[in-house]
Amino acid sequence: MIKPRTPPGVMELLPREQIAFQRMLDAIRHTFEQFGFLPVETPVMELSEVLLTKSGGETERQVYFVQSTGALGKATEAGSVDAIPELALRFDLTVPLARYVAEHEHDLAFPFRRYQMQRVYRGERAQRGRFREFYQCDIDVVGKDALSIRFDAEIPAVISALFERLAIGDFTIQLNHRKLLRGYFEGLGIGEGLQQAAVLRELDKLDKRGEPAVRATLAGDEFNLSNDAIERLMGFSRVRSSGHADALAKLDGLGGGTPLFEEGRSELRSILQQMHVMGVPEQRYAINLSIARGLDYYTGVVYETILNAYPQIGSVCSGGRYDDLAGHYTRSKLPGVGISIGLTRLFFQLRDAGVVAAADSSVDVLVALLDDAGLDDVLALSQRLRAAGLNVETQLEPRKLARQMQYADRAGIRFVAIRGEDEAARGMVAIRDLRRGQQFEVAEAEVANALQVEREQLRAQPETMQ
Amino acid sequence: MIKPRTPPGVMELLPREQIAFQRMLDAIRHTFEQFGFLPVETPVMELSEVLLTKSGGETERQVYFVQSTGALGKATEAGSVDAIPELALRFDLTVPLARYVAEHEHDLAFPFRRYQMQRVYRGERAQRGRFREFYQCDIDVVGKDALSIRFDAEIPAVISALFERLAIGDFTIQLNHRKLLRGYFEGLGIGEGLQQAAVLRELDKLDKRGEPAVRATLAGDEFNLSNDAIERLMGFSRVRSSGHADALAKLDGLGGGTPLFEEGRSELRSILQQMHVMGVPEQRYAINLSIARGLDYYTGVVYETILNAYPQIGSVCSGGRYDDLAGHYTRSKLPGVGISIGLTRLFFQLRDAGVVAAADSSVDVLVALLDDAGLDDVLALSQRLRAAGLNVETQLEPRKLARQMQYADRAGIRFVAIRGEDEAARGMVAIRDLRRGQQFEVAEAEVANALQVEREQLRAQPETMQ
Repeated sequence: MIKPRTPPGVMELLPREQIAFQRMLDAIRHTFEQFGFLPVETPVMELSEVLLTKSGGETERQVYFVQSTGALGKATEAGSVDAIPELALRFDLTVPLARYVAEHEHDLAFPFRRYQMQRVYRGERAQRGRFREFYQCDIDVVGKDALSIRFDAEIPAVISALFERLAIGDFTIQLNHRKLLRGYFEGLGIGEGLQQAAVLRELDKLDKRGEPAVRATLAGDEFNLSNDAIERLMGFSRVRSSGHADALAKLDGLGGGTPLFEEGRSELRSILQQMHVMGVPEQRYAINLSIARGLDYYTGVVYETILNAYPQIGSVCSGGRYDDLAGHYTRSKLPGVGISIGLTRLFFQLRDAGVVAAADSSVDVLVALLDDAGLDDVLALSQRLRAAGLNVETQLEPRKLARQMQYADRAGIRFVAIRGEDEAARGMVAIRDLRRGQQFEVAEAEVANALQVEREQLRAQPETMQ
Repeated sequence: MIKPRTPPGVMELLPREQIAFQRMLDAIRHTFEQFGFLPVETPVMELSEVLLTKSGGETERQVYFVQSTGALGKATEAGSVDAIPELALRFDLTVPLARYVAEHEHDLAFPFRRYQMQRVYRGERAQRGRFREFYQCDIDVVGKDALSIRFDAEIPAVISALFERLAIGDFTIQLNHRKLLRGYFEGLGIGEGLQQAAVLRELDKLDKRGEPAVRATLAGDEFNLSNDAIERLMGFSRVRSSGHADALAKLDGLGGGTPLFEEGRSELRSILQQMHVMGVPEQRYAINLSIARGLDYYTGVVYETILNAYPQIGSVCSGGRYDDLAGHYTRSKLPGVGISIGLTRLFFQLRDAGVVAAADSSVDVLVALLDDAGLDDVLALSQRLRAAGLNVETQLEPRKLARQMQYADRAGIRFVAIRGEDEAARGMVAIRDLRRGQQFEVAEAEVANALQVEREQLRAQPETMQ
């Protein structure tokens, strides 16, 4: 006898939790499609040679490699093993997107708008809240040669619509711009690349180490920054806006800067203005000049989204603008802008916080069976309800009605349809509404209609994961 | 520069094909939910120890094992490698179901009805039409200690509803029963287990080898069957029914048999009768006594589903009744009944046959942009259409209208909304219907309504993958 269990670092859900998770996936997909993004799915396994072109040390250590039994056997017999097996599991959806766009370049229309919602794999250390398998839900717009920054403003409109629909509480889309950041650093005499990255890492520790310690480091031998430069850095990274006018005012108030800085400011201003026109509510976005993200990768606007009531969860939807998606695979220049949601982690955290819970069943109605003689009627009634578009579970073996009610209640099924001898004689069906704790009778021909009306009323309520 | 490409044996689709595939997935999920099945997802990776308890030689050779870079590096340094790595990719959804039910036994209500639609992995030889990664769409009803055969009749009702919805042509659900088969073999003196399996394998070759060759083998040293026994076997395996009454008559006409045979006949008869009551159209099912399927696993009814116009595709939806789902993981007896659809292979074959093709876009309308001055209006119109529930792509950079039309046409987007200066002055929007090749004008406030009416008309048509 083997103990049935999953490997560490994966999330497996009971059915009612799975329904809640599925509703989030559906809401995300629905929003992506509303904004004209097209679905793409890529294989879980990629050729290692293709997948690992640009991953750095950290990523490479976390890659899962795949070998069939045959290949493995051969390696074992020979007493050796290839350092890098032929296949590997994707660790994000960005490298597969780059490969996909480069491979199918001539069959795609640009700007190419795709969404992808699939699982990715990382050999993370096993730890609560860290996942080795998790869903990412990504959108990207990829241009050929160039891509208007108007797409940079459309992305936050998607984020906003999405989190409104998810109804998991107030949120703030925080924006920064890499050119603004790099330009500002330049102005302070902090050089490109590694030095800027090192300074940003120090600024990132402000919350943890406290301001005096960070100031001391920046003034020390490694960075050798003047007090004035440190002062400006601190001021810059503290900039947060509140509302649309304030965001524009804060940008204007940053003083003059290098050409790169001005370019970043002008782009970020345009993005904010277009978001406003697109109807993104102004309390849903803010500039936050401390946001850096993937320094090597992003080249323009960057986004992070926080849930206002749960800042400790960190960013739940992040991304930005990049210049060169697929330089390893094609000579075409493919700039783009996109975001990613780590849904498994988000769901886990929201469940911990009590924001999402086991959902009501996907079953609308349980058709009860009181005795074997009633089976044919119960089967026919079930089929009629299904034909009317309802999700129906039929009780196929008679049990005490109380037990059937109890089952429906625990399973989160709202309605139980009862067609006992008594009801049948009168051409009626009794409907028990477990949510309202009421029971009513409907003529047999009216049952589907009655339940559908109730169900539509339910659906008309704002979608929630509860 | 690395050549971007997928590994052999996976199916990757362009967006319009992906939309067609997604619609099939949606139709399947919808039907499963209509019959009260609950969603389950399990991790792609299982512990090898748990996954490989009962797999035989063939399966074991096809398993993909998974190792993180760390584990692989250690093995390489040590000059050795574990024969069996800790993790493996699931090769079907049945073993994960067994593990899931045994692991969560005390949190599940029985009979447990679950659907699962995920990818599975097999190290198949690379060959056209053979996939190393493919979707399976499964349903199972799992009982505790016992499970009424009424569930055996509900499964074909699901299959029937599902293939009606998929609208990929006429189909036949073929049924047989293992007890009928075993009982009949017993009656001919063909022993349990291996000998029955060997005879079945020979009968399976009837189409390929022809009847004389198979007869000769059965009469030969290995089987040593009498002419009379061979005659009856041939007759039995040729039994096919046409219509409900004929199915019952053919069953009755099989003559008397062993107790096991009679048990099988009685069960199959009940199943057919309940299917009839459930409204499964009689031209959609038939008995076919040549169907055997997984002899070790199935113990009662077995199903295969063929597309009448494409018999060469073979069974597109198969399954049956089994006695013991999870004997390796729990002492509880868990009998069940279920089916599986290999959707990747089915889609591939249907595409080859021209039955499914690239779908229309998921985008309902492209909002055209004629010049920069019109951007704000175009953004506002797009948001209004989205708020009305439409999927909208906004043209964010002005292009010649002809090019925007061309783009929409190629992308399979049916409507283009045009709000030029001229239209704007009159408060109107021009709508180009690319399917009908017509253009009409609607007052701005009416656009969402007008398009929604058109879209609903489209949706009201029977779902098809075209």
